[in-house]
Amino acid sequence: MATKRILLNAFVMNCPGNQSPGLWTHPNDRSDHYKNIDHWIELAKTLEAARFDGVFFADVLGPYDVYQNSRDAGLRQAVQSPINDPLLIIPAMAAVTKQLGFGVTASVTHEHPYIFARRMSTLDHLTQGRIGWNIVTSYLKSASKNIGAQQLAHDERYDVAAEFLNVCYKLWEGSWEDDAVVKDRKNKVFVDPAKVHDIKHEGTYFNVPGAHLSEPSPQRTPVIYQAGLSPKGIQFSAQNAEGIYISAPTISIAKKYVERIRSKSQNFGRKRDEIKIFSLFTPIVGQTDAEAQAKYNAYKEHLSYEGALSLFSGWTGIDLSIYDLDDHLDYIQNDAMRSRLEIFTTVDPNKKWTIKEIAEFVGIGGIGPVVAGTPEKIADQMETWINEAGVDGFNIAYVVMPETFTDFATYVVPVLQERGLVRKDVKQQTHRHNLFGTDHLPVHHPGKQYDQKNQSVK
Amino acid sequence: MATKRILLNAFVMNCPGNQSPGLWTHPNDRSDHYKNIDHWIELAKTLEAARFDGVFFADVLGPYDVYQNSRDAGLRQAVQSPINDPLLIIPAMAAVTKQLGFGVTASVTHEHPYIFARRMSTLDHLTQGRIGWNIVTSYLKSASKNIGAQQLAHDERYDVAAEFLNVCYKLWEGSWEDDAVVKDRKNKVFVDPAKVHDIKHEGTYFNVPGAHLSEPSPQRTPVIYQAGLSPKGIQFSAQNAEGIYISAPTISIAKKYVERIRSKSQNFGRKRDEIKIFSLFTPIVGQTDAEAQAKYNAYKEHLSYEGALSLFSGWTGIDLSIYDLDDHLDYIQNDAMRSRLEIFTTVDPNKKWTIKEIAEFVGIGGIGPVVAGTPEKIADQMETWINEAGVDGFNIAYVVMPETFTDFATYVVPVLQERGLVRKDVKQQTHRHNLFGTDHLPVHHPGKQYDQKNQSVK
Repeated sequence: MATKRILLNAFVMNCPGNQSPGLWTHPNDRSDHYKNIDHWIELAKTLEAARFDGVFFADVLGPYDVYQNSRDAGLRQAVQSPINDPLLIIPAMAAVTKQLGFGVTASVTHEHPYIFARRMSTLDHLTQGRIGWNIVTSYLKSASKNIGAQQLAHDERYDVAAEFLNVCYKLWEGSWEDDAVVKDRKNKVFVDPAKVHDIKHEGTYFNVPGAHLSEPSPQRTPVIYQAGLSPKGIQFSAQNAEGIYISAPTISIAKKYVERIRSKSQNFGRKRDEIKIFSLFTPIVGQTDAEAQAKYNAYKEHLSYEGALSLFSGWTGIDLSIYDLDDHLDYIQNDAMRSRLEIFTTVDPNKKWTIKEIAEFVGIGGIGPVVAGTPEKIADQMETWINEAGVDGFNIAYVVMPETFTDFATYVVPVLQERGLVRKDVKQQTHRHNLFGTDHLPVHHPGKQYDQKNQSVK
Repeated sequence: MATKRILLNAFVMNCPGNQSPGLWTHPNDRSDHYKNIDHWIELAKTLEAARFDGVFFADVLGPYDVYQNSRDAGLRQAVQSPINDPLLIIPAMAAVTKQLGFGVTASVTHEHPYIFARRMSTLDHLTQGRIGWNIVTSYLKSASKNIGAQQLAHDERYDVAAEFLNVCYKLWEGSWEDDAVVKDRKNKVFVDPAKVHDIKHEGTYFNVPGAHLSEPSPQRTPVIYQAGLSPKGIQFSAQNAEGIYISAPTISIAKKYVERIRSKSQNFGRKRDEIKIFSLFTPIVGQTDAEAQAKYNAYKEHLSYEGALSLFSGWTGIDLSIYDLDDHLDYIQNDAMRSRLEIFTTVDPNKKWTIKEIAEFVGIGGIGPVVAGTPEKIADQMETWINEAGVDGFNIAYVVMPETFTDFATYVVPVLQERGLVRKDVKQQTHRHNLFGTDHLPVHHPGKQYDQKNQSVK
């Protein structure tokens, strides 16, 4: 077939709402059940039954407080708040699935890599090799002030991140040999000490002389995800990431991102299509296009303008409350802001966007396409994105939880399967194996330089 | 009845083996299944069916490397190694239980309290209020050098711990009012911002100006556990702990500990019996005493001397490898060591302990009593401990996992229930409610001083 297999990823957070502020008021929305482990167990079953490849947990560690220079709007509208730790949900979801992968956001600046590496190894063990790590290098300012960390300059953040990652790579790849765990009951040897190596890391930010606490997990290094597209961010991604989440409102913008990622990664000696790119996508399904459109309009009734602007102000760092909802983009004099908002003029150069329209665009599914239509129309659109933008799959945002996912699972997935675009089977395998056909990092990946098989340290 | 209800706690770690080094070689031992989430889910079902009140996860963050000045023996014998993160197991165990509590060890010196407080709130939400926190203030030296932390002086560690705990108390008790989460769909208010308070903490070790990330969890503050009995440690426990785990080989030693804890806690204006004290206890069950004794002897065949001495050397900080197995305690000239080992002479003043006997004592169940006998004999012993030492319950260590727990559950628990000493029912309730009949900290507890109902900050 002309179109390659489409990778499906569900985009969630451990909070009420995610990319659709105000939709928690919709009568069908259950996103406020986030505190209940059964809510997540049910979602895991839904996603695995629909042959999703993964679920991605975003995370933030501070309130959205740029809009009106206050966190109040964010609290009122549950803008990614209140928010709980995403890692703790995953083992319970893993216990009821076999193939679903788990991409989890964790920052490199609030925890020591020696401790963090064990946390991820534990997850990789408990999920039987289905963990991915979305590396985050920055915070909202509202987070960093509570962690007592001065906000590092953007470039230095990437230096810390790079060293943090190297420590993790050394612990995951370079500390325990494959056959270190012997479990020889007869000779009473659980681990052969000669096959466990100190990593002897002495760096600018971290010193870790010892060995990893955990035995090798199925994937060793979790599947590395990234979301950043800043110059330093993309450098980092192009070198390390195995999967990248992008937010692009149109095919042409996505195509530009894809091109940038793929050519940069080639600079690091990687294959052009080695990174799996997931594009944000929000499906709204109806039996007819009209029915889907009506559903979309009904959703929009629940959208919160102050919520959407609080979210978008947090992302851009610019307080949009100083404008009226009917103000046009043209009114905005601030250059940094204009450049951040340029994305909207790209979507439709003939359109004069108002603040209200921006809120409506961002407030349903974030900065990605919303496709309201029949299952066939949605499947068509997805195929077009795959073929024209060159993405590998989609990061599916919900409007109403879990309705968006159950609708998509019930109506769209069978169409995609019928077309041979989505797998029909479920296999017990690691996340990396599902994506790349191999359990471990490829030999040319930076993490592999620490593989003990290429080392003589002890 | 004369005897009070006995609280039952299971003592585990996220590693092969725990307090019985070498027993991983026993054909029935499944402790090496620790990497499998189903292993823990099954254990949770066993414990809840046997009406255990809780399960306690110990943890270490470094290898045992005092013995022979090397980690090798510890690796060979799986002495609490390899070891994974305990927190991540808990939600999956909570999903299949209603009343089982989870005491989890976490140190105050490797993570920021702003991040840690969210982690614990998340666990308290996901378990529906069944989380307890065993506060650890120290590490093995082998851990601290990998975290780049200089080992703080013992007393200063408690100062850091006290401030860490205060930040957590402020976030848990003082940040979100009970009715802050409104979820008013009609007026589109999820959270009332006026009822969320900045904690404005400025301290010696931490600055946390903002509010808690999580909404109030069922217990707010997790049930506070401690295990330390050093002078500063007991000061800390007597003030903060709601439950204390002790390791005492005999009733008279346990009684001394209990007396010390209860009188110290009264100094802080707490009720004499306000702290629940759990004593280490290892039951080995047989249909006859002879059968139980034979089982014990068979277990002992699998004990690892180098494993037991590696464990005990790590606990005491003294390398016991310089002695022969047949050396008597009398040979030991080192004062610090003699004082740490005095516990053995207290067990039996007429006995001349050899290093080998110490290894055999420590190596089956740690520094607590091992009772091998019929279910009735074990129940009798437990009653005696409750009545004479004044403990509230037991922290049950396993020799073989899960055999020790399934044997105890199958044969001893029914006897205890028959005597009215162990509950028969299971109720969905918080861990604190199960222990104390109330979901939240009592008003005179130090954590309650930050309760927003007594505050006017914003």
